[in-house]
Amino acid sequence: MPDTPRRSESRYGNRPTMKDVAARAGVGLKTVSRVVNGEQGVTPETERRVQEAIDALGFRRNDSARVLRKGRTASIGLVLEDLADPFYGPLSRSVEEVARAHGALLINGSSAEDPDREQELVLALCARRVDGLVIIPAGDDHRYLEQEIRAGVATVFVDRPAGKTDADVVLSDNFGGARDGVAHLIAHGHRRIGFIGDMPRIHTAAERLRGYLAAMEDAGIPVEDSWTSLGVTDPLRVRRAAEDMLRGPSPVTAVFAGNNRVSVTVIRVLAEQTRRVALVGFDDIELADLLHPGLTVVAQDASVLGRTAAERLFGQLDGSLIVPERIELPTRLITRGSGELPPAD
Amino acid sequence: MPDTPRRSESRYGNRPTMKDVAARAGVGLKTVSRVVNGEQGVTPETERRVQEAIDALGFRRNDSARVLRKGRTASIGLVLEDLADPFYGPLSRSVEEVARAHGALLINGSSAEDPDREQELVLALCARRVDGLVIIPAGDDHRYLEQEIRAGVATVFVDRPAGKTDADVVLSDNFGGARDGVAHLIAHGHRRIGFIGDMPRIHTAAERLRGYLAAMEDAGIPVEDSWTSLGVTDPLRVRRAAEDMLRGPSPVTAVFAGNNRVSVTVIRVLAEQTRRVALVGFDDIELADLLHPGLTVVAQDASVLGRTAAERLFGQLDGSLIVPERIELPTRLITRGSGELPPAD
Repeated sequence: MPDTPRRSESRYGNRPTMKDVAARAGVGLKTVSRVVNGEQGVTPETERRVQEAIDALGFRRNDSARVLRKGRTASIGLVLEDLADPFYGPLSRSVEEVARAHGALLINGSSAEDPDREQELVLALCARRVDGLVIIPAGDDHRYLEQEIRAGVATVFVDRPAGKTDADVVLSDNFGGARDGVAHLIAHGHRRIGFIGDMPRIHTAAERLRGYLAAMEDAGIPVEDSWTSLGVTDPLRVRRAAEDMLRGPSPVTAVFAGNNRVSVTVIRVLAEQTRRVALVGFDDIELADLLHPGLTVVAQDASVLGRTAAERLFGQLDGSLIVPERIELPTRLITRGSGELPPAD
Repeated sequence: MPDTPRRSESRYGNRPTMKDVAARAGVGLKTVSRVVNGEQGVTPETERRVQEAIDALGFRRNDSARVLRKGRTASIGLVLEDLADPFYGPLSRSVEEVARAHGALLINGSSAEDPDREQELVLALCARRVDGLVIIPAGDDHRYLEQEIRAGVATVFVDRPAGKTDADVVLSDNFGGARDGVAHLIAHGHRRIGFIGDMPRIHTAAERLRGYLAAMEDAGIPVEDSWTSLGVTDPLRVRRAAEDMLRGPSPVTAVFAGNNRVSVTVIRVLAEQTRRVALVGFDDIELADLLHPGLTVVAQDASVLGRTAAERLFGQLDGSLIVPERIELPTRLITRGSGELPPAD
């Protein structure tokens, strides 16, 4: 794991950090953390050395967290890409729960998938002095944030990575999840499998397409051009894409839907077909188990994504998390019927 | 319509408003609005009088709106009660679209149905100088806001009314919608109809219960205690309530679900029953039409609620809306099968 510190000073001016204590005591960060939090596994001699360094430097644990708990305007920002996408509901709520546990308010905003709007919103939130930001980025260049980060704004990217800047990132395993979902269709006898996804400039969409292609390649199936369709996820575009794949000389017998917005429209299109077409969707959907057939999905845990991101944010704020990390959370295949249908021909 | 102005001065200090122009020209507000916006239907003589008043007073149209469009930090706040409830997705998005059309940023927060949290969040947003607030209130006493309103913060309540203060309110017809939905079940032969709703201190829950009781009374059906259940809408509580109503000496043959959270659980409980039980739910649900049977609902248009509230907010900010109003939007019964099942016994 790289140990390059994100910034040379503590987030709160020149206040000593756990890292300073570790350097002075000649021990690792984890050891300092154990002593500070009163955990097991430190010899009395080491504990004494750490305590001396703490006293000498005047280190105080969770100082900023205590400030947060006291201050009336303590707050963090959450920048979403679409306020109406149900995927972000549980994510937002879990970020809010962590914020509340730290005595901070959460304020949200949406970029509506527009990089300029994202930057405007992020900088407006910084100008209103949020202590930190959880960002689902629309853009792919976040150098505009570096000055804010140096000025002490904690930052975690979630669902999609930061662009051109080093930052904490919490993602789902989009590639692996899509590959597993498509492999599941192949295992049920499908070879002509369609993929309908979001715009390819969106990280999650590109990763899921990559997963689809990898599964097809693993099975030695050449992918025809007419089997993949990427673009906006509005119902009209998705409907046309699905209908095109189901027609023509080489119609698909199964579809992999790149996200919940795509699944909802594909379910409707398939319900109108006379022959049965298999479907696996990325993202779980409310009531998916009560459809006929039930919808087989590659589920992300949006609530764990949000909680993990928010906890890292407060870890940055209390000085215990210094090195940016990329955390990838596993997805889970949930079989309910639609992904287990055999090829219709 | 009452004509008591909410405040004696314009929201932006002593700047003249359309109302001042109307008074000086001796015409109605609508006439001033027509002249200012260059619309038809004003005689040349009246137009001249209005123009003279405009010049004399130094009135400038949409001044604050133009300030909003120019200012980088122009923003409005939206206070929700639950970030994870899909009902608020389209509402939030339409508020955001109106804000964007006025060049303002939208920042959200959630009270998590806690009146103290609502007040804390509202005051924190005011301290960060939002120009206005759209509030889905958790509490029922909003006198804490009066000072902020006097200081110039525009305020519109949506989905639920303001408590103990005079303010713009945009609501759905919760009473009428629930009454129609229950009357629909009665028209299909049901007499033993259950009602499962949210906590009775929540305005929408109380209004919908009132609608249920009115429909039952209109049909001359005495309501047994065991047929109504109000409380939190988590799946465990709702499941128990539904199961209790379906058992015992006088089991219900139909259920009216008080909101989307309740419907989702009741659908699951009914899917496990051997006899068929009719169901009408308040609020539409994604994929409700693809269930078997399709879910009959009393639908609100969350997006129109949000847009109407946001437009009133900017109307207050540009000085064209002065008198607080209560706007009630109609609901719509959508029949899909579950509400048309006959009684099973």
